Amino acid sequence: MIPIPKGFSFGAMSAGFKNSLKYDLGVVLCETEAPAAGVFTQNAFPAAPVQVARDMLAGRKTARAVCINSGQANAATGDRGMVDCRLSLEMLGDALGIPEESILPASTGVIGVPMDMAKWRDAAPELAGRMGKSSPMDFARAIMTTDAFPKVAWANISGLPGSEGPVRVLGFAKGAGMICPNMATMLSVVLTDAEVEPALLREVLAESVSLSFNRIIVDGDTSTNDTVYAMASGASGAKAGREHKDALSEAFADVCQALAYMIVEDGEGATKVVRIAVTGARDNGDAEKVARAVGKSPLVKTALFGKDPNWGRILGAVGYSGAAFDPDHVTISMGKIPLFRNGHPVEGESKQLLAPHMRRQDIEINIDLGAGGGHYEVLASDLGHGYVRINAEYTS
Amino acid sequence: MIPIPKGFSFGAMSAGFKNSLKYDLGVVLCETEAPAAGVFTQNAFPAAPVQVARDMLAGRKTARAVCINSGQANAATGDRGMVDCRLSLEMLGDALGIPEESILPASTGVIGVPMDMAKWRDAAPELAGRMGKSSPMDFARAIMTTDAFPKVAWANISGLPGSEGPVRVLGFAKGAGMICPNMATMLSVVLTDAEVEPALLREVLAESVSLSFNRIIVDGDTSTNDTVYAMASGASGAKAGREHKDALSEAFADVCQALAYMIVEDGEGATKVVRIAVTGARDNGDAEKVARAVGKSPLVKTALFGKDPNWGRILGAVGYSGAAFDPDHVTISMGKIPLFRNGHPVEGESKQLLAPHMRRQDIEINIDLGAGGGHYEVLASDLGHGYVRINAEYTS
Repeated sequence: MIPIPKGFSFGAMSAGFKNSLKYDLGVVLCETEAPAAGVFTQNAFPAAPVQVARDMLAGRKTARAVCINSGQANAATGDRGMVDCRLSLEMLGDALGIPEESILPASTGVIGVPMDMAKWRDAAPELAGRMGKSSPMDFARAIMTTDAFPKVAWANISGLPGSEGPVRVLGFAKGAGMICPNMATMLSVVLTDAEVEPALLREVLAESVSLSFNRIIVDGDTSTNDTVYAMASGASGAKAGREHKDALSEAFADVCQALAYMIVEDGEGATKVVRIAVTGARDNGDAEKVARAVGKSPLVKTALFGKDPNWGRILGAVGYSGAAFDPDHVTISMGKIPLFRNGHPVEGESKQLLAPHMRRQDIEINIDLGAGGGHYEVLASDLGHGYVRINAEYTS
Repeated sequence: MIPIPKGFSFGAMSAGFKNSLKYDLGVVLCETEAPAAGVFTQNAFPAAPVQVARDMLAGRKTARAVCINSGQANAATGDRGMVDCRLSLEMLGDALGIPEESILPASTGVIGVPMDMAKWRDAAPELAGRMGKSSPMDFARAIMTTDAFPKVAWANISGLPGSEGPVRVLGFAKGAGMICPNMATMLSVVLTDAEVEPALLREVLAESVSLSFNRIIVDGDTSTNDTVYAMASGASGAKAGREHKDALSEAFADVCQALAYMIVEDGEGATKVVRIAVTGARDNGDAEKVARAVGKSPLVKTALFGKDPNWGRILGAVGYSGAAFDPDHVTISMGKIPLFRNGHPVEGESKQLLAPHMRRQDIEINIDLGAGGGHYEVLASDLGHGYVRINAEYTS
């Protein structure tokens, strides 16, 4: 059983947005107005629900519900998209008997296609009737697009005063899977029954996102709809003040990192999860440049798909990353086996030794720039035929 | 017949670097010491021949020959790579009866593998015996790796004083094709029989490269070995002074742009050449950011492979490019048909109208940011199964 933080209930259904019987609409409802926070895409074309939710959270820092639909992104839909988003929340608020302005929206689906409001009108009362009858797994399924599996992770927060039972964090996510063109959105919701002030909740969420979802690379494309929400019901009775930030952050980061791993694991056509750890950079920014250049390189990603310990391609990407270093001080290892050290290839049988590591799902690349104390780490998928098939062959 | 600029001869052979009978070693020889220029990779791990050639051209601004081998990149080979490179030039200089320091080297092949010097020793005298007997096409073939076709282009320079016949520019290139892992190098040589001072030659070459090879995107990976050389024999008798720079630049840019097009056309697994033209940017730098973000986006590239006029993915890439603009002033068109205008999708049958355009080899994407006068253009390939097959399945 998935441990549900106290105070939350779920509803999920098929509204027909996907033109199938699959679930495509889900709501998390909190029994009281609860502190809420959001982290949104940096894309210059934010989808309508992103714009609406940003405005909402800029005002009140609380919410009663998060509503997520798949099947239609409501992105690049102009003024009509904004009107439709607000209308969908009004319909849902009426059906649930809560204010429309306390429902945080998120959408994923085809860019540039207006929402089907008739379907929303039919769905709202049915969804209201399902509240509390759907499971967390139903909700996790409702937010999937081409994800191969629902993504749920949880943790407990230790050491909080005021609670007898466990204090819980439960997270959901969908990954960057595409079958219909343009679906490439990362969405996540993290719930806790700890009592957390909005400002602290926002801080902990932003830090957890920067340690998890912001460090994964499937194809390097940033969606118009990416959204991560957090809500804190306080229903456990445990209060997490600023003095408990570390415990809170640890639980949030655990949940977000587990979900982030699942997103990479479930990347389109991905067969591997590659951890690229850069150390010895002049600063953390340089380390990030290198990690991202390697994680995005199509040459590195196709080599990994081919189980090829192709350190020359890694070296090439390090070289064009823009980071400052002395090539003679750089070490590149895979699976702990050094391949290039201090400007020279490592002599010997390292490629043969690496063969078992290359067959694994989890691959390690370590790059030491020998230039300082900066470090950064990303998780990346490989690039194989599945990616091309999913993204090219299902045309509109 | 390929029109050869006066004063140049060619030699090409199979030295066995590729372990096959295919040509893998080629030389262009000028009958006199001639003004020469080079443009090199920005990668922080430049291959040994790049380091050697940079030093040579930093001193003397002239050369007698360019020597290119395929089958071994001599990159990431440490001190030994530098010694091997100089030794290979010494062997060749002895055989050709010219100073080793007037031969400009370039290599392409597997990164991190030392050169086979016994093969160089055998090849040098044989290559010297072939000088003048090989054709330009033989030379073009010798520098190929997985290129599907040899790449040669030419132009005449008009309006130069001192010559009775045509004054010629002839260029060769190899593209970023990989079968052996780690081969990803762009090499080119541009020859003219105009008389051009070294400083002007260098200037014209650098400008032509920035208008051609620097504006193509196959996979966004920058090689350790990329090199473009120019040599001016002066043998036509026509002198191109600074007052003829425009005519010279036009002929050089024509040749380099034709070669650049061929490289994209012959990109690994590529089925399309996509011209991404960005206008209306705040400045040219912003236009370049947008053009490169779109040209590198795996989502855009797989959609093009799938013949899908998927403007939502283009919009997504424009949005994360980092350029400054107002989303409500942006227009995105393909094949002259507007798809997104002033913040709204264009209503109507545009996707159907685009179907014939999407089936073409040459695809046009036009993006007007509505933010100023900046513009930039790139040529990009699509991303299909061939790319994955070539780069993943031929493992080491």
